[in-house]
Parts: sequence; structure tokens; C-alpha cells
Amino acid sequence: MIDSRWFLEFTTDKEASLHSLEEVLYTAQTRYQKLEILRLGSYGKTLVLDGKMQSTELDEFIYHESLVHPAMITHGGPKRVLIAGGGEGATIREVLRHPTVESVCMIDLDEEVVEACKTHLHEWHRGCFDDPRVEVLHEDARRFIAEGDEKFDVIILDLPEPMEAGPAIKLYTKEFYDEVAGHLSPGGVAVTQATSVSVNNMSAFALIHNTMARTFTTVRGYWTSVPSFYVPWGFVFASNGKDPKGLSLEEIGARTGRLNSPLRFYNPEVHHGMFAMPQYLQEAVKHEQRINTDSEPLSFY
Amino acid sequence: MIDSRWFLEFTTDKEASLHSLEEVLYTAQTRYQKLEILRLGSYGKTLVLDGKMQSTELDEFIYHESLVHPAMITHGGPKRVLIAGGGEGATIREVLRHPTVESVCMIDLDEEVVEACKTHLHEWHRGCFDDPRVEVLHEDARRFIAEGDEKFDVIILDLPEPMEAGPAIKLYTKEFYDEVAGHLSPGGVAVTQATSVSVNNMSAFALIHNTMARTFTTVRGYWTSVPSFYVPWGFVFASNGKDPKGLSLEEIGARTGRLNSPLRFYNPEVHHGMFAMPQYLQEAVKHEQRINTDSEPLSFY
Amino acid sequence: MIDSRWFLEFTTDKEASLHSLEEVLYTAQTRYQKLEILRLGSYGKTLVLDGKMQSTELDEFIYHESLVHPAMITHGGPKRVLIAGGGEGATIREVLRHPTVESVCMIDLDEEVVEACKTHLHEWHRGCFDDPRVEVLHEDARRFIAEGDEKFDVIILDLPEPMEAGPAIKLYTKEFYDEVAGHLSPGGVAVTQATSVSVNNMSAFALIHNTMARTFTTVRGYWTSVPSFYVPWGFVFASNGKDPKGLSLEEIGARTGRLNSPLRFYNPEVHHGMFAMPQYLQEAVKHEQRINTDSEPLSFY
Amino acid sequence: MIDSRWFLEFTTDKEASLHSLEEVLYTAQTRYQKLEILRLGSYGKTLVLDGKMQSTELDEFIYHESLVHPAMITHGGPKRVLIAGGGEGATIREVLRHPTVESVCMIDLDEEVVEACKTHLHEWHRGCFDDPRVEVLHEDARRFIAEGDEKFDVIILDLPEPMEAGPAIKLYTKEFYDEVAGHLSPGGVAVTQATSVSVNNMSAFALIHNTMARTFTTVRGYWTSVPSFYVPWGFVFASNGKDPKGLSLEEIGARTGRLNSPLRFYNPEVHHGMFAMPQYLQEAVKHEQRINTDSEPLSFY
Repeated sequence: MIDSRWFLEFTTDKEASLHSLEEVLYTAQTRYQKLEILRLGSYGKTLVLDGKMQSTELDEFIYHESLVHPAMITHGGPKRVLIAGGGEGATIREVLRHPTVESVCMIDLDEEVVEACKTHLHEWHRGCFDDPRVEVLHEDARRFIAEGDEKFDVIILDLPEPMEAGPAIKLYTKEFYDEVAGHLSPGGVAVTQATSVSVNNMSAFALIHNTMARTFTTVRGYWTSVPSFYVPWGFVFASNGKDPKGLSLEEIGARTGRLNSPLRFYNPEVHHGMFAMPQYLQEAVKHEQRINTDSEPLSFY
Repeated sequence: MIDSRWFLEFTTDKEASLHSLEEVLYTAQTRYQKLEILRLGSYGKTLVLDGKMQSTELDEFIYHESLVHPAMITHGGPKRVLIAGGGEGATIREVLRHPTVESVCMIDLDEEVVEACKTHLHEWHRGCFDDPRVEVLHEDARRFIAEGDEKFDVIILDLPEPMEAGPAIKLYTKEFYDEVAGHLSPGGVAVTQATSVSVNNMSAFALIHNTMARTFTTVRGYWTSVPSFYVPWGFVFASNGKDPKGLSLEEIGARTGRLNSPLRFYNPEVHHGMFAMPQYLQEAVKHEQRINTDSEPLSFY
Repeated sequence: MIDSRWFLEFTTDKEASLHSLEEVLYTAQTRYQKLEILRLGSYGKTLVLDGKMQSTELDEFIYHESLVHPAMITHGGPKRVLIAGGGEGATIREVLRHPTVESVCMIDLDEEVVEACKTHLHEWHRGCFDDPRVEVLHEDARRFIAEGDEKFDVIILDLPEPMEAGPAIKLYTKEFYDEVAGHLSPGGVAVTQATSVSVNNMSAFALIHNTMARTFTTVRGYWTSVPSFYVPWGFVFASNGKDPKGLSLEEIGARTGRLNSPLRFYNPEVHHGMFAMPQYLQEAVKHEQRINTDSEPLSFY
Repeated sequence: MIDSRWFLEFTTDKEASLHSLEEVLYTAQTRYQKLEILRLGSYGKTLVLDGKMQSTELDEFIYHESLVHPAMITHGGPKRVLIAGGGEGATIREVLRHPTVESVCMIDLDEEVVEACKTHLHEWHRGCFDDPRVEVLHEDARRFIAEGDEKFDVIILDLPEPMEAGPAIKLYTKEFYDEVAGHLSPGGVAVTQATSVSVNNMSAFALIHNTMARTFTTVRGYWTSVPSFYVPWGFVFASNGKDPKGLSLEEIGARTGRLNSPLRFYNPEVHHGMFAMPQYLQEAVKHEQRINTDSEPLSFY
């Protein structure tokens, strides 16, 4: 007997995925978006915003370890970390595994989402919102970065998809990356989630990569497969000086060994594996000429 | 306006994918299976057998390069190659890029599928069925290997999913792998596609890995993301002696440089990237105790 | 934005319907079947058994009025009524509108379904389970009818679909209809729901019709459209003597006028409208030769 | 094995239907709309315009007999018939069954649709486009009616859904119905398809009914179930004088008996059955206050 209840997401106008829906745990219309916390037969508890899967109980560790550790390990000794986005708390969780961390500031606009995650997604945050080093603010990340004068060792951009019409588009522009660079301490590094790198949908990745390359001297795209995301997923690392490809396996192993709890996805070989760019993706990045700017934000889709 | 025509595949009983369906190019019921060649809005021309996507025009190169080159490059100078399965002809295409190859024998049971691919999937085979080094046989691969006395430098197992009830289950057993090992020339290597390595569906991969490890001294699982496959995909390399993880980037680069045409996915960094096994997958393999045998074939799903 | 949560039902292997799923109100696996009470965007609260929609808040009145009133009105003064099935309580509700009714006995095998309906489907039963004239039994309807010696004025068969493998198949056989006839009081009438009368799926209806015609002298098929059922729906009235087609509009109006509360679907014109059989359906019934028997129950699908 | 190819139609934003897709017979983008002729597993050959099922091989006879015969039979002796819309040719086919007919003029804007139907939908038109009494024009039906001075005995409005934004909305307004009335010969009658009469979607029907009632003295809504339409379907008959409810069964039988070929759906009892309006629909019509006008066309959905 085929299941009767399904979660349906059109990932593009040519593709959709269906997941059996075991339970509707929580739904709300926040000031900014439609929020659903569902239990799927395929991936367990799942956060959905505006109909799009954000992360799932079974494989969120792949996404969050991939987002956080390459940058943190490459930095080598981060003390002050800024997270833009990151509502579920799992990005904080991964940051706090690094024993050098003294403060984590997370800026997530949508307080109702963060509160719902605190209540319903303990598997993600593991109580880390209560860590005394953590501060959570609900305001516009762009303004916070522009107006503050604090410097950070690592800035992690864990943001919603850059839709042309949506507010997040301003968190993927040249001007924003300049602000990010201006708020890094010497030797600081930044990283952003960077959408699909699928063969039929990699232009947003290439655009983000090319835009960051106008601000930073070292820009490294990387990718992995988060199964529930359906397509291979990209990230971009950026720094003025530090290079994740320059670390030896031994050095990564030594740094990883100092983390205060074991990981499930990331390890030294996986670190370099993620930065191994197939030819087709190298070429997409090389041929990208466009830059995303405040005045002419580009359509990502 | 949402598209009106869709291809629907239940990848498990808890997940399905939908792809917009532009054109039905060819359908047939062969002696063994239902065959469809479709044009999808997402991935272009697509081969579907018994309702399951086999490979697509846009990303088949990722699958076929990942299946063929790690084994061929690790061997170093393969002359005689055997392919079990491989109906589309793209596995032959990748094999023939290696200039040392003197003969390729492909055994695919279903002649009607191979003929349909010859006619409709030129983008896959690129005419390589006509290469004088190529021989195609339509018989049972297990019997062919068991009964023949030829030895091969590389044996590539490009087989359908190992369903408990299906005929392919006998191409994933200990006894079959013993036959494969017995038909490798000294220094010969084998590789098999090895199904999903997704967090919620990796037991078949672990079982294949463990079963091969009873026959071969060197067994290396690897994986990549073929976007249209929806979940990350595994392969297992096996040999008595040769080790793909032992090659330096320089050596892989030198060997790749001798291929007679450029690749789109595989390169030295990608080679090692594919063999980088995340913790969760290492543990799944390590904890697997079962062996798949002729007398007690295990349920893969 | 397309809704993210859906109820999916394959009504045949060639057709399915999707309804947006607002809320999962209750789910359970009873001893006999999978039970879901959902709130659909299309039809409101909905009872689903084994993945199949049974009745919905918005249009259950069409089904239940169509099932109950043609038989009750044709009888003219029913005092003792038996319902086989009818878990939601809406069949009782419609029966109790008839002021002559002195007792209603409902036999529904699945007590957990009835209890869930009592709790969650007040819109259906409107408290009628508490009416002192109502008795509810949880046992096998076939045995109850065979073994009892009570006679009824109206017997209403509000049963699940007659699947070949399911227990309900024995509630659609010649032998069962003989038992039903044997437990009608003089002038008594029976009615059964009789599945789809769609152009591509009317053989079960014809089979039920033909089978009942071996037991009863007057058998009248009728039909209407219950929108959530997707296809037009059939019923069969049976009696030894009474004929719903023989009533004048005036007589039906007079009898309907004596009901103790107003109806939303049924009226004198609708009564005759439902018994108006299109040519194609008359022919399907006329050409049906098969009879459904205990010893050789026929495949309905 | 679940079918792999499906036709998907969102009938509202809360409901969709899926039909297995056997074959794509023809597709085109005409000047006005997207055209598909498909073969569905459920209903056979099917015409789809802009993603919406128009009529199917298996049950188009129900729609076309219901649209044509109540008006033609009520008229009693129609000679000159006008059809607005009706691309498939099946409306003409039904009109030509009436032996009194001397001329049929069909106005369908989209010549490419009509040509495709001529080629691919012979089951619908049965060659009737070649009947010497038939004239087909491709122009705007509203203008044709307004500017011509010919009078018709029966005007049949077989039009696309009245979307607020679409051109068809002007074929459902008070002003248009005044033009229709002005082009009827004495004793002439008109009929329009009038969309869903489902419990959750009957406001367009009520609006059309109420709008026609401002032009015509006798307006009669009626309905039936065309299974592939998913929901019960409405029509509105209009005339100044003639009344389909006033005909006796005998008179309808006599008139039907003079048709030059047998019908599959319509008969005297079905005629009256279709005009039997359930309470809920009578009330929806009674409470409708709005009128659809050229200057303020109302949103139907």
C-alpha cells in the first residue's frame, strides 16, 4: 500500500520530490515566512520554510559539518565567530566543537523560526543556545555587519536561497562581501552556502564564486552531497590569505583531533575531497563573468 | 503554469521524484524488462528500465567516468577489459579513451535494450559499438565469466540494482566475486557500481563492500553525486594488490594526460576526493557482518 | 506557492488524486485497517481507511442522503432499521430524520474506527450515537444477520469496497443477499452502496446489480456524484414489491415533508433523477451475466 | 509496479489529479494556447489545452450529449444552430443527429486547435466537419454574434473556462447574453457549459446562472457527472419562453426517437434527472446577487 500523506517540493519548475509525511509537528506563518516542522518517512524530523526543505534530522550533520569545519579548521584558532542565518542552531553546535571559540554571535532575522527550532529541533541545537558564549540577535544581518565595529575570525553565511525578489539577495552581493571582508580580523575567513552545483543548475554557484573573488584574494568553491537536498550542494570559502587547499592531511588531522567531540562526516580526506572540483564545475566558474551587486542584483534562477 | 506531463519514480517506498516529461522517444517491453527512452525537462534524454532512471544525457558522464576511470587509471595499462551490463555503451566509450586498450568485451543480457540504445542514445555511445576492438554478447554474465578461460586486466560490473527476487542478485555474491577474481590477469582490478550511500539507505553498499572483501585483498569503497540519481552513489574497487589510494596526484595526472580525449568529471583531485569516506560511511562498512552468497542471497532493500 | 503537504490516493492503478493536507487530526492502526482523520484543503475533515477516502465534511451529506432516503422514503413508514457498516454515524443520522423509526441497529466490525469517529467526526454523527433508539454492535455483519431472527423494515449496506481478498467480499454475494432478504419484514427494502459507475469502471456495479436481481424481484440501480469520490457513484435498491420508481413526485414530497429536519441534497426531483440510468449504464447492467457467490467470489477490480 | 509516466492537472490550488500517460500523440503551442493530445490509461485519447483536460475519448459523449440535446430537444425543431467554441467537433456531431437541422455554424477562435482535432480526434467529430451543412469560422465569437444579423434557433456556448484574465470572460457577461438573446429566432434557445457544481466550487455556476437570468425569462441550471472532469459539471439553459422542465417524458421520448442515430447517455429520464437540482445548489443559485458584466468582470476563481 502506497503511503497516503506526502510532502511535495518543486525544487525547480522541472523537478519535484515527494517524501512520505509521518507527522506534522508544528506549523506557523511567521512575520517573514511559512514555517513547517514535519516528520518525513525518509529523513525524519525536517524543517521547511516557504515550502522548501531546510535541513533534516538524518542528514543535517553533513550540511552543517561541511559549512563550518573547512573554514574553522583552515583558520586554525578562531575565537570570535559570526553566523548570519543559522536558525536551527546546528551551525552554532558545530562552531562550539572548536575549543578556541570564545564567542559566537548568530544573527537570524526571524525570531519565530529560532524559537520554534529551540522548542522542536533539539536534535539540531543540542542545547547550545544556552551556552554562555552564544548570543542570538534578531535583526537584519546586512545592517548588523555594516554598522558594527567588531571584528570576527570566522564569518559563516548560513542563509536562505538568493531569490531575486527576496531580502536574502542583498546577502550575496559584492557590496555585502566587502562589508564581510571589512569585519574579519587579520587572518579571518568567511564561508557561505552557495546553492546547487548540479549539472543543470550551477549558475548561482558560479555567480557567488565570481562575486566573492572580486573582494577576496583566496576564494575556493567546494561541494558535497546532502542527500535530502536532492542535488549536490556548493559552498564558497573566502579569505585574504588563508587557503584550505594548502593544509596537509596531517595538519587537518591534528586540528580536527583537538575538537571537543567527534564528527560524523568531516575528516582530513573529506576536507580535500570537498575541494576537488570536477572539470565541468571548474569550467562553469571560469566562464562566469557576472557579478551580483546591490544596484543590479542578478536573477539566480 | 505547472507542467502537465511528468515522470514519476518511487526511489524507495518513502521517497519519489518527479521530472517534467517533454517527450516519449521510445518504449518497449523487452523479454526482460520495460524500456522507456524519455526526454525530461530536467536532465534531457533519459533511459528508464522497469520504471527506474538508469542514466541521463546531462549527467551520465559523471556516473560513467566515476565507474571506469578509477579502476583503469589504477591498473595503469589495461589491454583487455570486460564489462558486465553497460547497455547504453557509455561504459565502453570511457574504456576506449585509454590508449592501451586492445579489446573490450561487453556482456549485456538484454539485446533489445542494447539495440534501442544504439539507435536512440548516440550521445552515450558515440558510435563506439562500431570500434573494431569492441565485442558485444547477449548472454548471462555470470555464466560467461564462469565458463570462459580468458583473463582480463579490468572487469567492470555495470549492473542493475541487486533486488532479492531479480536475476542480478547472483552478480553480487561471494561466489560471483570469486569467479571475477579468477578471471583477472595478474595485477588485474575489478569495480562494481554499488547503489546508494545515502544516510538512510547504505546497507546494500556495506554488504557489497563486505562481500568483496572476502575475495580480494584490497577493497576500496568510493562515491560521488550523480544528480539525477537523487542520492549519493557508491562504487567498490577490488584488487589483489593494486590500490587506488596509493597513487600520487602526479601519477594520476600523468596517466590521465595520456587518455586520448579530455574528461568532464574525473581528474586527480576528484579521484582522491571520491575515495574520501565520511565517518558515517566508514562505520557502516566497518560494522557490516553479512555476506551475500548464492545460497542465502540477502535482501538489499 | 504550491502547497507542501498532500494526501495522495490511487483510485485505480491508472488514476490518482491529490488533495492539499492542512492537518493530520488522528491516525491509528486498528485491528483491521489503517485509520486517518485528516483535514484537507479541498473538502475539510476527511475519514481515510487503508489510504482510501471514505467521506468528507463538505460532501458526506450527498453520499449519506443518497444512501438512506431513497430506501426509507420508498418504504413509507420504517420502524426497525439495520445498518451494516456506517462507522461515521452519518447513516444513523439520516435514518433518525424519519419520525417513524423506533430502532436502529448498526453493525460495524471495527470498534476503534467507530470510537475515533465518535470523538473526531461530530459533524457526521451529530451526537446520534447517544439517541436511545440506537444500538451499535461490533461484530461480523454477515454472521449477525444470518444468526439473528429479528426482521427489519430497511437494511442499509454501507460497506467497504468489495476487494476479492478482503472480508467485505462476503457482504456482496448471492448467499448474503438471501440472508438479507430473509431478514426483511413484509414490504421491507434493502439498499447497498455499489461503487463506481464511471465509464471506465462499472463492472462491480453491474455485478452487484445482477447478483441482487437473483434474490429480489425489484432491483433498481441509481447513482449520483459525490465530488470527493472523484467518479460517479452507484447504489442498488432491492425489494420484493416496493419500487422507488413508482412513487409520484407528490408522494415523495409528502413523505419528505414529514422528516423532522430539512435535507441538503435529496428532494423529489433528485429522487427520480438518481434513478435515471443513462444508456451506457443500462447496457452494462443488461449485459452482465456473472453472479457473485460465496464459493466463487469474483474479482471486482 | 506503479506507472512511470503521468498527466498532472491542478484542478484548483487544493486539488490535483494524476492519470497514467500512455502516449503523447501531438503537442503544439498555438497562437492562443498550449495544445496536447495524449492517450491516458484511464480515459484514452484526451485533448488538453493549457494543461487542462477538455474532453476524453471514453466520456466525451456524456459532456457533449448533455450540452446539446436538452436545448435541441426542448426547441423541438431547430434548423439553424450556432456553436461558439466546440473545437473537437463533437458538439457538431451531436447537433447533426437532429434531422431538422439545416445549417450549423461553429465559431472557434483557434484554428490550429480545430485542425489538430480534425487530424487526431476522429472519434470525436466522426467526419462531421465535412457535412455540407457545417461552416467553421475562426474568429472572435463575441464579435461574430454582435456584428451579424443572422438569427439562430439554438445557440450553444461550448467555451473555455471563464478566467478573469482570459479572453473567454467576455463570453460570460450580461452584455454578451443580451447579444445572444438578440440573435435567437422566435422560440430560440441557448445553452452554455457552466463549470463545476461541486460543493466546494459552485460560485461560477451561480454567477453564470444569475447573469443569464437578467437577460432571459426562463433560465434552468442542470448538471451531470462527466467522470474525467473530476467534479460534477453544470450547464445553464436559457430561453424566452421554452422550458425544458415542462416537457413530458413521452414528448421527450418522441422527439428523441426521431434522431437519426442512437445516443449513449441522454434519454427522457436522464433529461429530467439533469434538471433535478439538489437543495444545496438551489440555495447557492438563489443567494447569488452578483452579475458578470463587461465593465466589471468578476473573478470566477
